[in-house]
Amino acid sequence: MDFEEKTLRRTTIFEGNIFKVVVDDVKLPNALGNAKRELVLHRGAVSILAVTPENKLVIIKQYRKAIESISYEIPAGKLEVGENGSELEAAGRELEEETGYSGHLEQIYEFYTAIGFCNEKIKLYLATELKKVENPRPQDVDEVLEVFELSYQECLEMIAQGKIVDAKTIIAINYFGQHFGGDL
Amino acid sequence: MDFEEKTLRRTTIFEGNIFKVVVDDVKLPNALGNAKRELVLHRGAVSILAVTPENKLVIIKQYRKAIESISYEIPAGKLEVGENGSELEAAGRELEEETGYSGHLEQIYEFYTAIGFCNEKIKLYLATELKKVENPRPQDVDEVLEVFELSYQECLEMIAQGKIVDAKTIIAINYFGQHFGGDL
Repeated sequence: MDFEEKTLRRTTIFEGNIFKVVVDDVKLPNALGNAKRELVLHRGAVSILAVTPENKLVIIKQYRKAIESISYEIPAGKLEVGENGSELEAAGRELEEETGYSGHLEQIYEFYTAIGFCNEKIKLYLATELKKVENPRPQDVDEVLEVFELSYQECLEMIAQGKIVDAKTIIAINYFGQHFGGDL
Repeated sequence: MDFEEKTLRRTTIFEGNIFKVVVDDVKLPNALGNAKRELVLHRGAVSILAVTPENKLVIIKQYRKAIESISYEIPAGKLEVGENGSELEAAGRELEEETGYSGHLEQIYEFYTAIGFCNEKIKLYLATELKKVENPRPQDVDEVLEVFELSYQECLEMIAQGKIVDAKTIIAINYFGQHFGGDL
């Protein structure tokens, strides 16, 4: 059984600042004929599971236009043009900009968020040994953020209440519970 | 501090079969001025953490054009037009089509996959008491799938090997480990 879909033609629909949209005509494997694939192409992003010395998780409150609602999430940010390959640096920058912390970073996961139609890949870093930066880099001008430090139990309650509804944040909270979750 | 971004104007860029793309002009809160938000609008999807009587997780091998690669994931499918509100039915249908199983379904999570620019919401169901359906609904004609039943340990190895790279599948495996993970 063959799985691969060969691209016959790619049509670019939209070239935005955040993502690009293309439609691929593909040849299906196993003589199944042709099909169209609508795709969102994205540079990727980093996100940070930041654990404070008090064993709390750093969570950002922000407005998300895509869902027309407030959302509580771990710190995260898109890779900038040319930043591919220096995700660790991007993670340190986002952590500082959004929370005012610096810390020791190590990658714990890498995943695609919406693999059915989008190639956005998020690298998730664990940040420990957090220290407040004296004059942290400022937040992006079009971002309004509020920072919280929550226990594992408080995170679980926010999932149950539907306040935490973001996939990468749920993955991070599960990791937090498995590795730091003793203190309920 | 105010968080909400008010829509001044919405421009439709693309109306596809899988998603729609719009660009919103928004008024930022706190007199920060205006900004543009590029958005992917999606009907949402369901996915299923299906646990066999042997305490294994049902995993689908398939080709994903967005990442130009094979991917191993839990069963999932988009909601069809008008299917909003009957996600449970959609989950049963996808489970049968992709795996040939029926089972007892209960919702365990609901999350947005790419909340920064996309409103795709996935409901994740736990399926237990799995039974083989005698004449299961056929798979979609443009899908080539292979079904595996994997232990929790095998799932963890596939994450470590980079074969499982899908966010919803990682969330499901973490849940599987927490609730069914005794048998390593």
